[in-house]
Amino acid sequence: MIPDNGLRARRLGIDTHSETVVFLRKDCSVCRSEGFTSHNRILLSSGAHHAIATLYQVESDILGCDEAGLSDATWRALGLKEGDFITVQHAPPVESLSLVRSRIFGHALGEADFQHIVPDIVAGRYSAIEVTSFITACAAQPLARDEVCFLTRAMVDAGQRLRWDQRIIADKHSVGGLPGNRTTPIIVAICTALGLVMPKTSSHAITSPAGTADTMETLAPVDLDERALRAVVQREGGCIAWGGAMRLSPADDILIRIEHALDIDSEGQMIASILSKKIAAGATHLVIDMPVGPTAKVRGAQAAASLTAGLAAVAENFGIRIQVMMGDGNQPIGRGIGPALEARDVLAVLTGRPEAPQDLRGRALALAGGLLEMSGGAAAGQGIKLATAALDDGRAWTKFQRICEAQGGMRTPPVSSHRKIIAATRDGAVLSIDNRRIARLAKLAGAPQAKAAGIALHVRLGDMVSAGTPLCTLHAEAAGELAYALSYADANADIFGIGAS
Amino acid sequence: MIPDNGLRARRLGIDTHSETVVFLRKDCSVCRSEGFTSHNRILLSSGAHHAIATLYQVESDILGCDEAGLSDATWRALGLKEGDFITVQHAPPVESLSLVRSRIFGHALGEADFQHIVPDIVAGRYSAIEVTSFITACAAQPLARDEVCFLTRAMVDAGQRLRWDQRIIADKHSVGGLPGNRTTPIIVAICTALGLVMPKTSSHAITSPAGTADTMETLAPVDLDERALRAVVQREGGCIAWGGAMRLSPADDILIRIEHALDIDSEGQMIASILSKKIAAGATHLVIDMPVGPTAKVRGAQAAASLTAGLAAVAENFGIRIQVMMGDGNQPIGRGIGPALEARDVLAVLTGRPEAPQDLRGRALALAGGLLEMSGGAAAGQGIKLATAALDDGRAWTKFQRICEAQGGMRTPPVSSHRKIIAATRDGAVLSIDNRRIARLAKLAGAPQAKAAGIALHVRLGDMVSAGTPLCTLHAEAAGELAYALSYADANADIFGIGAS
Repeated sequence: MIPDNGLRARRLGIDTHSETVVFLRKDCSVCRSEGFTSHNRILLSSGAHHAIATLYQVESDILGCDEAGLSDATWRALGLKEGDFITVQHAPPVESLSLVRSRIFGHALGEADFQHIVPDIVAGRYSAIEVTSFITACAAQPLARDEVCFLTRAMVDAGQRLRWDQRIIADKHSVGGLPGNRTTPIIVAICTALGLVMPKTSSHAITSPAGTADTMETLAPVDLDERALRAVVQREGGCIAWGGAMRLSPADDILIRIEHALDIDSEGQMIASILSKKIAAGATHLVIDMPVGPTAKVRGAQAAASLTAGLAAVAENFGIRIQVMMGDGNQPIGRGIGPALEARDVLAVLTGRPEAPQDLRGRALALAGGLLEMSGGAAAGQGIKLATAALDDGRAWTKFQRICEAQGGMRTPPVSSHRKIIAATRDGAVLSIDNRRIARLAKLAGAPQAKAAGIALHVRLGDMVSAGTPLCTLHAEAAGELAYALSYADANADIFGIGAS
Repeated sequence: MIPDNGLRARRLGIDTHSETVVFLRKDCSVCRSEGFTSHNRILLSSGAHHAIATLYQVESDILGCDEAGLSDATWRALGLKEGDFITVQHAPPVESLSLVRSRIFGHALGEADFQHIVPDIVAGRYSAIEVTSFITACAAQPLARDEVCFLTRAMVDAGQRLRWDQRIIADKHSVGGLPGNRTTPIIVAICTALGLVMPKTSSHAITSPAGTADTMETLAPVDLDERALRAVVQREGGCIAWGGAMRLSPADDILIRIEHALDIDSEGQMIASILSKKIAAGATHLVIDMPVGPTAKVRGAQAAASLTAGLAAVAENFGIRIQVMMGDGNQPIGRGIGPALEARDVLAVLTGRPEAPQDLRGRALALAGGLLEMSGGAAAGQGIKLATAALDDGRAWTKFQRICEAQGGMRTPPVSSHRKIIAATRDGAVLSIDNRRIARLAKLAGAPQAKAAGIALHVRLGDMVSAGTPLCTLHAEAAGELAYALSYADANADIFGIGAS
């Protein structure tokens, strides 16, 4: 006999990412009768829909005693509409949390354990601190190789999975951390022009100034559902779409938010994150771009070698062929940092303009070449040659335009309305460029929300400059954002390290 | 040059415990110009006051674009009053988080490291997930003995510390997990009656149906500031007060909330938690009650031995003498569970009434005897005898009344208005009583907020019962709470295990 715990659901419009949060008045009858306190996990029910949410108690009139205030994630999880009523009660214990505790205290997890934990995370049954505890435990006592395989499998199983008729599905991933490294649109254009099937799904930026989906969105629609995506691939052999609508490895989206907030990347989780997305997308042949440098995500040769070995072993377990291609991660790639600025670099490379950034062109050709060779699209040693030919004779550009048309029509990237040049304050050689702070600067200028915002670089490592030489141009869509980025640049004059070479 | 980020502070009355949270409109100019996203850590400033808070972004009219909505903890941290303005900006990196990350990846922490981490936690510079990560890392790779000492020291140093003129300061702690185990008021009465100095500070319940401060509050005021507490101790040699006003080891209050939410207790953190509070309170001689049983906090002999060894080693490092006294943790102690019901058990023992629960009396005498012997208040082997004499001849009761008067005047515990007997549904012997679920039942009935609420037990392990024999009585202050506890009792008939003996 549960008393009537009906409360009017109210959408508070609070963005808590995927975390389900509920606000109740401390003095409401259900808080009193159930003995709730803040941070309790509460079971919310609306008809056949249930969600477990973290409770914050309210002692003010922003809520009525007969109301339950819900964060957006909670509102969506319950499938509510205005005026609906919900009931609330203590959440039953989430059984898989005992497995997390057992992992904390040193017991390895088996395949069935991950198959309990991961779906519970995806279903929102874990609070943010519970997800944190799982992530930290798997970093502090590193995941064994078989645990990484189990985790990867569970992450794949907890989401949708794309299946393709073709025997070979080519894909590409970048380990990230390098601003401006926007090779994907170029690689897809080259490889599909040469006959590979490459249904590429990408993400929006989480912490960077642009994700591939952000850049691509300035060139064509990317928000395709599965039917639309399949139609594009059917027609053109490839696409460059946003993967979000496909729910590929949704666990990854939850885990990665917490990993970013904590600024921890453990090798096992990075492998499961990368491969679960690709397995779910149906990839059979995968080239992985791994920039290595002191301010890139992978900071040195040892970490790169270890990550590469782990990726290869787990990929083999799933029957996926991978090739990891390490690259120079000491400075950004290309000139633009930010969605539209990177899109213009991509266009310059695809159309063979003389000012096209050669590092971006070279990196895209190397990765496309590697992918062609491993996928049977080129004989050994012939990949780069074939890729270069397809790029230089316009086949890649034609294919790119066709893909954009198939995705809904090609667009022209927007142009910034506010700009400011940042100049060198001394003579010397450019000795270093800090990837992390240059990315931060681009974000302060408004990227990726402001599509035209970001940075255009004018120098590369080794260039000689004098006081007054332009180092980069800030691009913004609003005066306030430009001013704010400028103040950060003033306070961080050493983003560009200039000195005696 | 930072643009004008002034926002009107608005107290939203949201209880987030110690976590500082700020709500901003997603479309406000500062969110746009600073590129904030939900879960960012934001630096809030009001004059000389600063606080780092976790951001949730709002897309509704519960907030204006010129407002910053603050949780209670944030409001307090900034020392605001209605109408004040605050500025917001990206929080600078919290340097000590890099030490936490390094601990996650296997590096031991040194004394100076803990002296960076713990004050940052106390100052609210860590988000809940960052605290979680620290706690989990220290559980997944257990703290070494010297790390426990460093953590304990840092926790003591990060708060206030009481210093006493007397050479011997007696104290008592219970590891907990056993409902009704309310020996503290009896022990303080006995030991101070026999001349020990015992300035006992206790806490309110966090997850249990009553803490010592909750029970004692039904008998006398417990909310004393340091001056008042010292005056009571000066006059009577001891007190039974709430420790919260003294800010003893405030880090513990933050860590313990997260540990409870995660339901993890690692040995090292438990040792630091217990001893930091006692060192800060000025204790020199400490008796520790450690109930051991399958549903108590310490579940078996091996865990008890390991925890005891750790407590002894760390205490020695700080020059504190301790004695751990293990006890039967298989069932609750006394009859009452809940503030007033436990208070009545305490009074029955102190006044020597025939119905006084003998297990509570016996446990209090054993602990008092141990404390007397280790503190020089009794010769070896004479502790229990002396304690029993002081209890039986009324000296302890007289002393208890005097302490209550000194704390502000003795009170009569309240009596419940709603009651219901829960009876056995079959014949047999009482084979088990589940401490955790009996505590939950008492909380559902309203304890500890409703002081008179809780459970009065009528049976103990080994008792023979028939169908219809009363097992316990539920006490509540409201019909709804009684009904809710009853429905839980109905669904959990096996809280009392009854069967063939």
